[in-house]
Amino acid sequence: MTFAERVTRAQTTSGGLLCVGLDPDIAKLPADVATLASPLLAFNRRIVDATADIAAAYKPQAAFYSAVGGEPELEASIRYIRERAPHALVILDGKRNDIGNTAEAYAREAFDRYAADAVTVNPYMGTDSVMPFVAHAERGAVLLCRTSNPGARDFQDLLIDGLPLYRRVAERADRDWNRLGNLMLVVGATGAAEMAGLRAAHPDLTFLVPGIGAQGGDLENILAAGLKADGSGLFINSARGVIYAGGGTAGAIRAAALSLYDGINRGRAARRAMP
Amino acid sequence: MTFAERVTRAQTTSGGLLCVGLDPDIAKLPADVATLASPLLAFNRRIVDATADIAAAYKPQAAFYSAVGGEPELEASIRYIRERAPHALVILDGKRNDIGNTAEAYAREAFDRYAADAVTVNPYMGTDSVMPFVAHAERGAVLLCRTSNPGARDFQDLLIDGLPLYRRVAERADRDWNRLGNLMLVVGATGAAEMAGLRAAHPDLTFLVPGIGAQGGDLENILAAGLKADGSGLFINSARGVIYAGGGTAGAIRAAALSLYDGINRGRAARRAMP
Repeated sequence: MTFAERVTRAQTTSGGLLCVGLDPDIAKLPADVATLASPLLAFNRRIVDATADIAAAYKPQAAFYSAVGGEPELEASIRYIRERAPHALVILDGKRNDIGNTAEAYAREAFDRYAADAVTVNPYMGTDSVMPFVAHAERGAVLLCRTSNPGARDFQDLLIDGLPLYRRVAERADRDWNRLGNLMLVVGATGAAEMAGLRAAHPDLTFLVPGIGAQGGDLENILAAGLKADGSGLFINSARGVIYAGGGTAGAIRAAALSLYDGINRGRAARRAMP
Repeated sequence: MTFAERVTRAQTTSGGLLCVGLDPDIAKLPADVATLASPLLAFNRRIVDATADIAAAYKPQAAFYSAVGGEPELEASIRYIRERAPHALVILDGKRNDIGNTAEAYAREAFDRYAADAVTVNPYMGTDSVMPFVAHAERGAVLLCRTSNPGARDFQDLLIDGLPLYRRVAERADRDWNRLGNLMLVVGATGAAEMAGLRAAHPDLTFLVPGIGAQGGDLENILAAGLKADGSGLFINSARGVIYAGGGTAGAIRAAALSLYDGINRGRAARRAMP
C-alpha cells in the first residue's frame, strides 16, 4: 500500500482527521503511571486504548523519549499502536535533517528501526537532506513549512522576492520532492492566513497541523482555511490538550480526544454543506 | 568552567583545531570490530585511543547511533572520551530543533543524558527553538548557518534584502543568542567565499567546519578565510577521511588525523607569519 493510500485509509477508517501527539514529558506523567517500570509505554498504552477508534494518526515526539533513554519504550509503543489501531498512521516527530548519507541513516531510524509510516523533516539543508525520506512510495515525510511557535516569524516569514521563505519551501516541496505523492507539510494552527495562502497555492498537499489547544490555534478558522473541498487534506494534531486532560486519566483523555474529533467533523460537515 | 573557557582549553591542550567526527556507519565498520558485541563503541574506542592527544573535539553523529539502537554505545563512547581526552569538547551532532518545551527535552538529552558540551541546532524554527540550548554558560549550541552539502544552496543562499538567509541567521545568532558566549556556527568547508564573508561580519564567533576531505572542501582556502588573527576561531571536522582511513586500522586513523592536524597547524603558522 502506498503512503497516499495509507493516508486515505487512516482518515476513512477513523472517520476523521485527528492526530494524537504522544509527548509523554517525564515531569508531567499521571501519578499512577509515573512509578511504573516503563512509564512512557504505560501512559501511551492508556492513550492508545482511549483513542484507537477515533485517531487517524499518532505522532510520538522523539525528544521526550530520547531525553530519558526511552527509545525501547518508543519502539514498544509503536508496536502497540499497530496492534490496537492498525489503520492509524504513525508519524515519528523527530524533525530530522542532515546531509545525504546521514539523512539516510535517519531514514533507517524512522522506517526500519521504528517502522513509522512518516517522519517530520526540517528543510533548511535542502534537497539532498530531504530526498532519503521520500525515496519509497510506502513511507512519507512531513516537511516543516510554517510552524506554530513564536519563533516561526524569525526566518520562515522573511520575504524572498516578495514571497516568505515558508512559501518557497512549499513551492520546492510540491514541485520537486513529492513525485511519489508521499510528502506532507507542517502548517501550524497559529496562522490561519498563512494556511489559506498555502491551501490556495498547493491544492493537493496534505497539511499536518500542530498548535491547536495549548498553543492557541483556533480550530474553526483553521478548518475553513485548510480543508480541501472533499473534507480531507488535514491532520489536526493535539498532544498536551488531549493526553494531560483531567490529569491524564483514561476517561478525560477519551473525552478530550472525542471533543476535538467531533469539533473537526462539525467543521467538515459545515464546509460540505456550503453552497 | 564556562563553555568559552572549555573551547580555549580544548584548543590549547590539544595544540590544534582538529575535530574528529565519530560517524560509525554500521555498514562500513572495519571487519575486526563489526563482529563484536558493541561494535560502535569498540570502533570509537579505537578512534579515541588513536587521536586523544591531538583532538580538540569529538563530534558523534547521532543518526548513526539512533539508526541501529546504539544509544547505549553512544553514552559509553562519551564516557570513554572523558577518561582518555578530558580536555576535548564533545559536540553531539543531532541538528535538533523544535518548539520551546520540546527543545528543552532535546537540551536534556544532549546535556544531561549524554553529558555533551554542545549540540548542533537547526535555526529554521527561530528564537524559542534555540534558546534552551544556550541557556547555561557551561554548555553550548552550534547553530547551522551555511552547511557543506549541495542542498545548502536551495534555501540558505536565497537573498533577503540583499543578504543570503544564512547571513541573516548568523546576524541574529551573533546579536541575540550569544549573550553567554556559548554559541558557535556551522560553516561548511565547501564555501570559502561564504566563510570569508562570515568571518568579516562576525569576528568573534567560532565556526565548526565540516566538509573537509570526503565532501571536497579545501583546507588552505578555508583556513585563510576563517581563522581569527590569533590562529583560533575554527574547529575543523573530519569524519570519513579519518575514521575509515586504511580500512579503519588504528595506525591509519592516527596517520590521517595527524596529517590533518599538521596541515591545520601549518596553515595557522603561515597566517601568523604574514606581515
